[in-house]
Amino acid sequence: MADPQSALTVGDVGEHAVIQAIIEAAPSVLNGDDAAVLTHASPNSRSVVATDMLVSNRHFSFDYSTPFEVGYKAITVNFADIEAMGARPVGAVLALALPPDTPLDTVRELAQGVDKRCREYTTELLGGDVTASDQLVVSITAVGSLGGNRDALRLDRARVGQRVVAHGAIGYSAAGFALLEKFGRKRVPQELDELVRAHCQPALTPGRGVVARATGATAATDNSDGLVPDLDLLARRSHVGINLDADALQPDDLLQRAGELCGVDPWEWVLTGGEDHTLIATTASEAPSKFRTIGEVIRGEGVTVDGQAPEYQKGWVSF
Amino acid sequence: MADPQSALTVGDVGEHAVIQAIIEAAPSVLNGDDAAVLTHASPNSRSVVATDMLVSNRHFSFDYSTPFEVGYKAITVNFADIEAMGARPVGAVLALALPPDTPLDTVRELAQGVDKRCREYTTELLGGDVTASDQLVVSITAVGSLGGNRDALRLDRARVGQRVVAHGAIGYSAAGFALLEKFGRKRVPQELDELVRAHCQPALTPGRGVVARATGATAATDNSDGLVPDLDLLARRSHVGINLDADALQPDDLLQRAGELCGVDPWEWVLTGGEDHTLIATTASEAPSKFRTIGEVIRGEGVTVDGQAPEYQKGWVSF
Repeated sequence: MADPQSALTVGDVGEHAVIQAIIEAAPSVLNGDDAAVLTHASPNSRSVVATDMLVSNRHFSFDYSTPFEVGYKAITVNFADIEAMGARPVGAVLALALPPDTPLDTVRELAQGVDKRCREYTTELLGGDVTASDQLVVSITAVGSLGGNRDALRLDRARVGQRVVAHGAIGYSAAGFALLEKFGRKRVPQELDELVRAHCQPALTPGRGVVARATGATAATDNSDGLVPDLDLLARRSHVGINLDADALQPDDLLQRAGELCGVDPWEWVLTGGEDHTLIATTASEAPSKFRTIGEVIRGEGVTVDGQAPEYQKGWVSF
Repeated sequence: MADPQSALTVGDVGEHAVIQAIIEAAPSVLNGDDAAVLTHASPNSRSVVATDMLVSNRHFSFDYSTPFEVGYKAITVNFADIEAMGARPVGAVLALALPPDTPLDTVRELAQGVDKRCREYTTELLGGDVTASDQLVVSITAVGSLGGNRDALRLDRARVGQRVVAHGAIGYSAAGFALLEKFGRKRVPQELDELVRAHCQPALTPGRGVVARATGATAATDNSDGLVPDLDLLARRSHVGINLDADALQPDDLLQRAGELCGVDPWEWVLTGGEDHTLIATTASEAPSKFRTIGEVIRGEGVTVDGQAPEYQKGWVSF
């Protein structure tokens, strides 16, 4: 803290300087007017829009996440919804509600995380809004592009006989959160850092939704509220059942170790943890590149694991 | 309060019931999946995106605004940014951060206000997110469509010799706010209700941005931070000066009367009040339908009124 600049708060510098800091950290030629104008990739593309809000001390805490990680994650969770339609993210807008005593550096680092994750998807921060509040709120809306005439990947399009495929870890984010709650960021055993990172800065491979749609998937969602509740919604909307394969979901060594340390059955994290933003699709084809098969779409209703009711069912809900 | 239903809070009913109430109040077939898919109006249209956040007790207060008005206004302020590009609003997404003790009816009425205003623009609520927080935050992102090849109305496109035209009242919102602060909603003199409504539920005519662009306007913005600061930004970006016509901006009888009651020079509201979301454009043509001329674009820099520095200059800033 030798640099006196770093002690400045957003209340000290005011709205315009805060906006300037965000634009410098996440530059885009599309930003800076009343609204951003996006040219469509192709004449028959469609636009896809999703919004997801992160509230301080509900969805994240600076006790264990850096501002960079919060910005990065805020983009990831929004782009996961775009990917879950089989679309390609093309940009995001960021509305920030900030307590006046928020350090300007916090905003700058958060915007750097936004920018980093946007660029990993070859997208940019298109615009935003900054306002004062009592609690820090990060509200992002993601815009995507759905090319070609093929349908989007919809919750109501799972069909009996399809396989259920997943890209990304399942249960890691909840395990990481449990470790953070128990040990604090600095004391989580080094070998479990991958779980912590899955919670603080989930890094799914961009483009998997487009690949799933291109290879014949018809339905998809992302694992945000928990594997069982998210798939239960998909199954209900599609009027089908989903039977998961226990072997394919078996908690790995990392989850087992974390479970022992936290005194939690790691199956609870796998089945109901959520927040992994793992992309889950149903397809009649083979599992697409970087996906693995975790179950099948069957006649019936609800979600089963090896034909039985899941041991854990209730996921994340607000309030 | 005879109906026990009306005593329920969002914490009582939980996230899914809150989402259900919003979808019932603001129905759309496009809502309900991971993201909304929008088909473009025409092959050579572009998409326009803007976001604006309203925070309880900063941008609005239920002491003097109804939840319906807050929802209505939240759409208006966002669509004003779309109109200021010369584009047509096509939809909005709503992220709501809600204290758990928020009455469910409050959310329902807010969503009804959102729906009402969306439908006045022949648009719909496309999707959203609901989360718990300490403070009520309404975050909206508006999506618009810019048809044809003509440029958007940009801040940097005002040209010397153009007239400055405005659609909508100027200073009314700030006057209404001053009256609410002084008298409370119920005690504001009846004959000044139009000022109060301009603050609580600003009702600009939809489509004026499209009309301005179609009739030759090149630059536009909306009066959100205040007439002088908003036009100062436009003038700086365009490397021009703007000279306003005092006669055209002369406070009318309503503003004069409110000024007397509040002990405020009504010129302060006109020049710096902001939040009217009046559409202001520059054009070489005659003032388009429902616009009036309020000044001209000149060589030089900054904003003047009848050639003099404005008596009031500083508008709304956060923090």
